[in-house]
Amino acid sequence: MKNSKLIETAIEALTCLPGVGPKSAQRMIYSLLKNNRHGGINLSQVLKQAMTEVSNCSVCQTYTENEICEICLNKDRLATGTVCVVENPSDIIAVERTGQFDGRYFVLHGNLSPIDGISPEDLKIDILENQLKSGNISEVILATSSTIHGEATALFISEICKKYKIQSTRIAYGIPIGGELDLVDGSTLIHAFSGRKTY
Amino acid sequence: MKNSKLIETAIEALTCLPGVGPKSAQRMIYSLLKNNRHGGINLSQVLKQAMTEVSNCSVCQTYTENEICEICLNKDRLATGTVCVVENPSDIIAVERTGQFDGRYFVLHGNLSPIDGISPEDLKIDILENQLKSGNISEVILATSSTIHGEATALFISEICKKYKIQSTRIAYGIPIGGELDLVDGSTLIHAFSGRKTY
Ligand SMILES: [Zn+2]
Ligand SMILES: [Zn+2]
Repeated sequence: MKNSKLIETAIEALTCLPGVGPKSAQRMIYSLLKNNRHGGINLSQVLKQAMTEVSNCSVCQTYTENEICEICLNKDRLATGTVCVVENPSDIIAVERTGQFDGRYFVLHGNLSPIDGISPEDLKIDILENQLKSGNISEVILATSSTIHGEATALFISEICKKYKIQSTRIAYGIPIGGELDLVDGSTLIHAFSGRKTY
Repeated sequence: MKNSKLIETAIEALTCLPGVGPKSAQRMIYSLLKNNRHGGINLSQVLKQAMTEVSNCSVCQTYTENEICEICLNKDRLATGTVCVVENPSDIIAVERTGQFDGRYFVLHGNLSPIDGISPEDLKIDILENQLKSGNISEVILATSSTIHGEATALFISEICKKYKIQSTRIAYGIPIGGELDLVDGSTLIHAFSGRKTY
């Protein structure tokens, strides 16, 4: 490489972004330098603000710069008594896009994994349990992924629900609508078969 | 979208990067928030520094935070008397990667285009002409792209070279018509250099 030291440092720094290697990082820096320095400075400022000010919603744990997120502030959504438990904040965006869910969420930011030392406290399941204890929740929809850790986490939370006599449900995993059977991976197919329902 | 306002602003800001749409921008922000806030803050700082401190080398016009770039400071490279004229700073990286060129460069940051109002002055061809006038240059290799504008620019500079009785050559072999120099593989580029022709 024969880039200047500062440009090389910037290229290196850009590779902290997922999916960005040295080659696309170089293209990005050159593009900003040539056409959009204002955009680059704006990105710099907003990025710093996001990194330092975004924390977790004290109720559902999703990312927000406020004490409580917009969804948790919505009394209509709290009133449904339904909580959808997801692994990641991005899962909320995916569910919201369907427009079919009107309850609220709880974000675990991961799954239980004793091997990796991830405990119920790390996932703030104690906070979730306090909410279940409060008596305002009637159903917990467990939408963790269908991995071993996701299943174990869902099972763990369903046991807590039982303790408080709250219904817990697991979202259905199977063949995507419109998906072709021979394009689906084996474990999805196994799920689809074992999760079959009578007409 | 149900992201917080600050996260949405950050996603929007990230789309100033080429090849980054709202979806990958969201993935980037979530990834930084979860796993690498330190990296995000570092990127923010370095990016601001690059946008504000990187200017053009006063000799060859490539991007650098210094008054004169590393290549132009190299007396051995100046002593060759050869100048390779390229469109973009990234073209220098591509030529340097071949390890076959030991002269110096001149970066136009574009091509002549009367329709777009891009004049010789915009490309600093007056600065290049002053360098040709100085008498220390014996050959100008014209490595602008093989587009209409790239050809016109090469021709324009070759006419200036004639005025000062300096040999000008055009790289010719291997570069695909319409192809961009920095996307071409090394051996093609070596062929293009060795197969250059005098005007
Ligand atoms: Zn919330
Ligand atoms: Zn230079």
